Amino acid sequence: MEYLQWRHVFKLDPAKVMSDEALKRVCESGTDAILVGGTDGVTLDLVVDLLIRVRQYTVPVALEISTIESVTPGFDFYFIPSVLNSTKTTFVKDLQVEAIKEFGDFMDWTELVPEGYCILNPDCKAAQVTEAHTELSVDDVIAHARLAEHFFNMPIFYLEYSGMYGDPTMVRAAKKVLTKTRLFYGGGITSAQQAAEMAKIADTIVVGNHLYDNLTEALETVKAVHDLSL
Amino acid sequence: MEYLQWRHVFKLDPAKVMSDEALKRVCESGTDAILVGGTDGVTLDLVVDLLIRVRQYTVPVALEISTIESVTPGFDFYFIPSVLNSTKTTFVKDLQVEAIKEFGDFMDWTELVPEGYCILNPDCKAAQVTEAHTELSVDDVIAHARLAEHFFNMPIFYLEYSGMYGDPTMVRAAKKVLTKTRLFYGGGITSAQQAAEMAKIADTIVVGNHLYDNLTEALETVKAVHDLSL
Repeated sequence: MEYLQWRHVFKLDPAKVMSDEALKRVCESGTDAILVGGTDGVTLDLVVDLLIRVRQYTVPVALEISTIESVTPGFDFYFIPSVLNSTKTTFVKDLQVEAIKEFGDFMDWTELVPEGYCILNPDCKAAQVTEAHTELSVDDVIAHARLAEHFFNMPIFYLEYSGMYGDPTMVRAAKKVLTKTRLFYGGGITSAQQAAEMAKIADTIVVGNHLYDNLTEALETVKAVHDLSL
Repeated sequence: MEYLQWRHVFKLDPAKVMSDEALKRVCESGTDAILVGGTDGVTLDLVVDLLIRVRQYTVPVALEISTIESVTPGFDFYFIPSVLNSTKTTFVKDLQVEAIKEFGDFMDWTELVPEGYCILNPDCKAAQVTEAHTELSVDDVIAHARLAEHFFNMPIFYLEYSGMYGDPTMVRAAKKVLTKTRLFYGGGITSAQQAAEMAKIADTIVVGNHLYDNLTEALETVKAVHDLSL
């Protein structure tokens, strides 16, 4: 699957405002894909609106499903998170069962991409909503990575520091034990230097919030990552 | 993997007593495999003792891990259940993370067989221990089967009626939507006729308790299942 080749991804939040000019720069930045997803206030209208705008460009676009109500056809892939360090079955598999019950009969399973999330920033919204157990040792992170790869056979293990730049030691530990499963890193990347640091370790890095804080700096992360691959 | 060919399995409980003569009849019955596992009072000593006794025969033998303390090398496969309709993350993935943390560094991952359980008998011990949500409609069972196959990529989806003969409608519904994932049925099989009925629907049937209640009847289920395959 082509998402296994992605090195750099921009995450766009449908609930946040971005001008047409800014969106054009993001979509033509050379990033490997746009991932549409957010935690708060994501509605079907906002998702459809953003999809239509992004579809003017050739960049692949995936929806990361946070609520069933905001699912719409037209994306290249549907990323479905399971929060592997959540303490509530809701975020591990109940919402997923519910979505499958709703859409299972007319779903193209090849477009479905399960993601095993491990959320490590205790203060982020996602950690609070999912009641994630974020106080993890290096050995815990390794065990979660192996759970994603060997027990759940997930194509993606996603280390999420949402809003905070992460600990490269943790990222390195996860990467070291993964063989088939791809390692995504996301959280707090605000410079080309940070993007390069994490992209040297993880298979794919995700840049999100900084697009809305400092677009020019965020756009510079694309080149920083792709220069590494040369 | 050879377990994908199994049609008939006997489940032996290490905490229950079986004479050497009875064990010989079970192991030489023509069953495709012995699965060692139980819910209550399973200790390392009991597991090792049973393994040694079963290893006198050529039948493949797998350990279904219920507690980390009772894991020992020497089995052909290690079946690791995840209870997909449990309301506690403990039985979906926490125990699994714990086991991986303990054994991950020296594990042969090809011997690990994840099983997606769906427990449908509300009165059984397993349902109570795992706080399983057993009031499932046909559509719910279908959604759980698809979760096992498409979201968690599990090789086995296990419909468990433990101690009670199940509803063939439920088993048929699960079988109909599964393509790669193998359907195991277990629970309340006490005759050749019941074994045949469920084996016509499920890929693999598991006969357990009745071995301890009426060995002769339990042994007759082997031929009943294998005659179907001719």
